[in-house]
Amino acid sequence: MERIITIGREYGSGGREIGRRLAEKLQFAFFDYQIVTELAKRTAFAEEYILSIQEKRPYPVLPVPTVRMWAPPNPMLDQHLEVFLKESEVIRDMADKAPCVIVGRCADYVLRHRNPLRLFFYADIADRMERCRKRNEEQKSLNHDVLRKIITQTDKNRSRYYEFLSGQKWGAKENYDLCINTSSADTEKIIQCVISLL
Amino acid sequence: MERIITIGREYGSGGREIGRRLAEKLQFAFFDYQIVTELAKRTAFAEEYILSIQEKRPYPVLPVPTVRMWAPPNPMLDQHLEVFLKESEVIRDMADKAPCVIVGRCADYVLRHRNPLRLFFYADIADRMERCRKRNEEQKSLNHDVLRKIITQTDKNRSRYYEFLSGQKWGAKENYDLCINTSSADTEKIIQCVISLL
Repeated sequence: MERIITIGREYGSGGREIGRRLAEKLQFAFFDYQIVTELAKRTAFAEEYILSIQEKRPYPVLPVPTVRMWAPPNPMLDQHLEVFLKESEVIRDMADKAPCVIVGRCADYVLRHRNPLRLFFYADIADRMERCRKRNEEQKSLNHDVLRKIITQTDKNRSRYYEFLSGQKWGAKENYDLCINTSSADTEKIIQCVISLL
Repeated sequence: MERIITIGREYGSGGREIGRRLAEKLQFAFFDYQIVTELAKRTAFAEEYILSIQEKRPYPVLPVPTVRMWAPPNPMLDQHLEVFLKESEVIRDMADKAPCVIVGRCADYVLRHRNPLRLFFYADIADRMERCRKRNEEQKSLNHDVLRKIITQTDKNRSRYYEFLSGQKWGAKENYDLCINTSSADTEKIIQCVISLL
C-alpha cells in the first residue's frame, strides 16, 4: 500500500477537508500548515513571509533546476529558491517519518521518486462558491463577482507556484493518479473511492 | 445509485476493458459496438460508413445545434448530422432499457440530463503502447514511432468527434466525475474505486 498520499485541489473544492478525513480514517499523519511552521523553524524566515512567497510566483515559469542553471545573480530569487528547496527538504523528512497525507505545496512533485498516490480534487464553480461561503465567515457576505475573483486568483497562484517549482501544469490529469470531481459524490463515498485504490 | 455509467478513454488506456468488467460486476448492460449495429439497423447506412464518420470529424469544431442553426445547405453535412442525431436517439433508448455502462460515442454528453457517472480513463504513453501490443496481433510488431502515431491519431479522432458533437473538450477533467490513471493501479482496484463512488 502507498504510504504517501498527496493532494492537489482547486480552491473551494473541499480537497483539504477530504484529505484530513482520509488521514484520520487511514490513521496516517496529516500535513498541511505544519510544513510552513517547520520551515520557519529551520530558516530565518517568518511564516508570513514563507506564505507570501508561496502565494505569488515571483519569476517566469521555469522549473527550479533550470532557473538555477542560467539565472544571473539575484539575491531575491536566491532567497525564494532557498525557501523552495528547504520546503522540499521538510516535505521529504515528514514523508520519511510516517505514512502521511500531504496537502498542496507541490508534494506530488517533490516526492515523485517515492511513488505517492497523487490525488487532485476539483468541483463546479457554483459548489465551490457555496463551500467557501459555508466555511468562511468573511466570505459569507461577499458578492458573487468578488468571491469568484478570489477563487480564480487563488487557483492562479497555486498554479503558478506549482509550475514554477515543477515545470508541470497544475491540475493537468496526466500529473495525477486520480482526479475527483467533488460535485459528484459525498465526502464519505469519495474517501472510500480513494481507499479502494490503495 | 446511478443507473448509467459513461466511459471516455484514451486509446490503449484499457478503459473499454475496465468498462466491460465493471458492467459484469454490477450486472449492468454493456454497450459499445452494439450502438453502431443498432444505428445501422435504424438507418440506411452501413456499419462501416457510420464508423468512418465517427472516426473523422468532417467539419469545423462546432456543437451540432450551432451547426444546424447557420450552416448553408450541404447534403454531406446533413447526412453526417443525421447519423449523429440518430446515434443519440439509440443511446437514449438503450439507457432507458436497463442500467448500463456505455463506452465512448459522446454518451456522457448525450445523456447529460440523466445524471450519468462520467468516467475518463487515461495512462502513461509507455503503458498504452504495451497494452496495444499485448491485445492486438497487428500492432505487436509495429515499431515505436508508428504505434505512437496510431495512438495519437486515434485520440485526435476521438477528440474531434467529441468536440464536434458536444462543443466540449474531450478528456478535460471538468467534463467528468472521475478521471483515473490506469497506470497507477490494477484493474480490480480501479473497479472497486468506481463502485465505491456509486
